[in-house]
Amino acid sequence: MSQLPLGFRAAGLPRHDRPRPSRHGLAIFYSEKPAQAAACFTTNVVKCVHIPIDQERLRHGRARVIMVNSGCANCCTGARGVREAHKTIAWASKALRISGQEILVASTGVIGDFMPMDLLSEEIPMLSKKLLEDDGVLYHSFHKAAEAIMTTDTTVKIAYRSVRLSGREVRLWGCCKGAGMIHPKMTSSGKPHATMLAFLLSDVQASARELKPLLAKATDESFNRVTVDGDMSTNDSVFLLANGASGATMKSGKDRQKYLAALQEVCIELSKKIAKDGEGASKFLEIRVEGARSERDAQQMAMTVATSPLVKTAAYGEDSNWGRILAAMGRSGVPFDPSKVDIAFGTLRVFRNGAPTSVSAEKAREPLKAKDVTLGIHLHAGKARGFYWTCDFTGQYVDINARYRT
Amino acid sequence: MSQLPLGFRAAGLPRHDRPRPSRHGLAIFYSEKPAQAAACFTTNVVKCVHIPIDQERLRHGRARVIMVNSGCANCCTGARGVREAHKTIAWASKALRISGQEILVASTGVIGDFMPMDLLSEEIPMLSKKLLEDDGVLYHSFHKAAEAIMTTDTTVKIAYRSVRLSGREVRLWGCCKGAGMIHPKMTSSGKPHATMLAFLLSDVQASARELKPLLAKATDESFNRVTVDGDMSTNDSVFLLANGASGATMKSGKDRQKYLAALQEVCIELSKKIAKDGEGASKFLEIRVEGARSERDAQQMAMTVATSPLVKTAAYGEDSNWGRILAAMGRSGVPFDPSKVDIAFGTLRVFRNGAPTSVSAEKAREPLKAKDVTLGIHLHAGKARGFYWTCDFTGQYVDINARYRT
Repeated sequence: MSQLPLGFRAAGLPRHDRPRPSRHGLAIFYSEKPAQAAACFTTNVVKCVHIPIDQERLRHGRARVIMVNSGCANCCTGARGVREAHKTIAWASKALRISGQEILVASTGVIGDFMPMDLLSEEIPMLSKKLLEDDGVLYHSFHKAAEAIMTTDTTVKIAYRSVRLSGREVRLWGCCKGAGMIHPKMTSSGKPHATMLAFLLSDVQASARELKPLLAKATDESFNRVTVDGDMSTNDSVFLLANGASGATMKSGKDRQKYLAALQEVCIELSKKIAKDGEGASKFLEIRVEGARSERDAQQMAMTVATSPLVKTAAYGEDSNWGRILAAMGRSGVPFDPSKVDIAFGTLRVFRNGAPTSVSAEKAREPLKAKDVTLGIHLHAGKARGFYWTCDFTGQYVDINARYRT
Repeated sequence: MSQLPLGFRAAGLPRHDRPRPSRHGLAIFYSEKPAQAAACFTTNVVKCVHIPIDQERLRHGRARVIMVNSGCANCCTGARGVREAHKTIAWASKALRISGQEILVASTGVIGDFMPMDLLSEEIPMLSKKLLEDDGVLYHSFHKAAEAIMTTDTTVKIAYRSVRLSGREVRLWGCCKGAGMIHPKMTSSGKPHATMLAFLLSDVQASARELKPLLAKATDESFNRVTVDGDMSTNDSVFLLANGASGATMKSGKDRQKYLAALQEVCIELSKKIAKDGEGASKFLEIRVEGARSERDAQQMAMTVATSPLVKTAAYGEDSNWGRILAAMGRSGVPFDPSKVDIAFGTLRVFRNGAPTSVSAEKAREPLKAKDVTLGIHLHAGKARGFYWTCDFTGQYVDINARYRT
C-alpha cells in the first residue's frame, strides 16, 4: 500500500468486468490537487486524435486527470473523432468537477473505429462518481485501472519505487499496457512509435519543466528499447503526473539523479513486462551489442536483430541458428568487419573472430531453453554499447493478429 | 522446348532425388562455349564465401558454368569455407574440363554450416559427367536443375521468353529459388540483400559490359521489390550468362529495349513466384503507392507496408484492418499528410481524404478473399509511384522457421 503516491486516485472498468459485456475498457487517473504534467508521444506521422489534444494542454504543463479508453484507438477518424474526444472530455469535466483543460486523454485499440459513445456517456459519469466517493488510495482501484487499459495484454503491468529526497519519501507508481504493434519511438518534442501506453504518478514536487527531460531520458532508455513486431503505433504515449503531495522537491543535482534513477527503474521494469507479454511470446530476448563505434550504431544493430522474424522464430524453436543474427546485423546499415565479430548465447560463445566456435549446435541450444535469453554481439570496433528488448515470434502472434478484430 | 536457349546445358540433383538422402541439392548450369557473364549480389555487409569468388571472376566478364549448392550457405565459415569452395571449383573444373576461372558458384541454406564435402566430392564429378554426356537441351534437365536449387521452396520457379532482334530469335530462360530470408537489395556494383538466387541463361550475343546495366535495371524493378520477411540474406545473387549461340546481337537502341523488356518480364515473373511461394504464404500481396513526391518515397513507403507483420497477419485473416496500413505508412520515414490519404483494397476504396469511407468492414473484406490482393495507397502529394510484392504472414511461416534446421 505504501508505494501508492499520495494524493492520487484511480478507477477502472476492465473490459471483462463491466455492467455490460464489451471489448472496451475505461480508466481514470486523478490527482486531488493540480499536478504538473509531462509526456512523450509517438513519432509516427499518423497520430491518434488524442495526441494533439494532449499536446495543447501540456503546453501549460498542468493536468489533474488522465482518462484512458482501451479498445478503440480513435485514430484516422477525421473530424468526427475529434468531436467525440472533446465530448468525452466534457463528460469527465462535468462529472469530476474540474476544467476540461486539466484532462488528458489516451486511447488504444483498433485504428479507424469510432469511439463507443453510448457506452462512454454512461460509464464516464459512473466511474467519475466512484472515484470521487472512494478515497482512491485502495490498491485495488489502481489495479483495476491498470487492468482497464489492457487490450491484447495477458498480464497487468505495474511497477513502483520510492526514494528519499533530502530526507523525505517520494513515491512513484506506474502502469502500462502493450503487447502488439509495439516498437515505440517517442519523444517529448512531439514525435511518436507502437501502442504502448504508460501512466506514471508521483507525489514529488517538481515543475513540468524539471520533469520533461527526466521523462524523455527514462523513456529513451526503456520504452524506446522495446519491440514486439517492429510496428510503431499511432498512439504510443507515456505520461507523468507529479502532484507535490509528498512535499519533497529535487533541491540538488543529487536529488535529481536519485529521482531519475527511480523513474528509470520503473520505466525499465514496465518495458520489460511489455516485451515479456508480447503477443504470443514464449520468451524474453535481450539483444546486447558491445564494441561498436558509436552508441547509435550499437542501438541500430540491436534494433535490427530484435526485429528480425528469422532470429525471433529461431529463438522460439530454441534453434542455435546464430547465422540469422549475422544476416540481420549485416543489413542493419551499420558498417562492421564480420571477421572480428563474436556472438554469445548467454555466456556461451558460439561464434568468434568471424568463424564458428567448436560448440556443437546441440550444446548451443542449452542457453536458448531459458525463459529469458540474452543474445550478445561484440563487434570489436570501439567501446560503445547498446541493447534492445524483444520476445520470440510464435504462431500465436499470427493467430492473435489475424483474428484481433473479428 | 523451343524456349531453351541454344548452347546451354543444365543438370541437377534435387535433395529429394539423390543417390543417398540429404538436405543438400546440387545444380550445374553450363554453356558449351565461353559466355559473357553479369551478376548482382546482396548488399548485406555479411556475405557468403562464394560472392567474392564470383566477383573476382566477373571482373573479366566471362564464365561458362554456374555451380549451385542448396542446403548450406557457406557463409560465416571463415578460412575453411573459402578453402572448401575452391576445392569444389577444382572438382568441377576437372570433371567438366574447363578452367576454374570460368566457374561461378552460388549457395543457399544454413549460415555457419560447412559444405557437405563428402557428398560433393562424389556428386560434382557424377553430375558433370551426366551433363557432358547428355545433349543438355532436354527440358527435363533444366527442370531438375531448377528443382535442385530449392530449399524451403514448395514450387519450382521457371520463366522464359523469346524475342526477335533484327530478325533473329533470341531466347532467355531463367529459374530462381527463394521463400524465406527474402528481402533482396542487390546491386551490380558489389553490394547485396535475402537468399534468393536466380540464374538467367540467354543465347544473345552481347558483352558483359552491355549486359550489366540491363541486368541491374531488371533486378532493381523485380527481385529488389520482393519481401517475404524483411530479412535480407547474405547470399542473394542474380546471374546472367549470354553465350551468343543465337548469333543475334543488340545492334540498335530498339533491340536493346526489346531485350531489356524480355529480361524484365522474366525477372518479374520469377520475382512474383518468390512472393507467392513465400514461406507459409496463403496470399500474394501487391502494395502500390501512388501520388508520392518521389519514386524513392513511394518505394520506401511500399516497402514499409510490405514488411509490416500487422498488415501481413491482417491479410492472412482477411481482416479489412486498413488502420494497420496507415500505422505502417506513418513509420516509413516518408513525410505525408494523413488527411489527404486514400486507401483501396483492389478497386474498393475503404479510406478517403483521411477518413473511413462508408464501406462496411464486412464488405471491405471481400477483395481480401482473393489469392492475389492489391493494397493501393494514394498520397495526393505528387506524381511518383512505387510498388512492392509480398505475401501474407501465417503460422506456417513461424513453424517453418522455428524448425528449419532441426
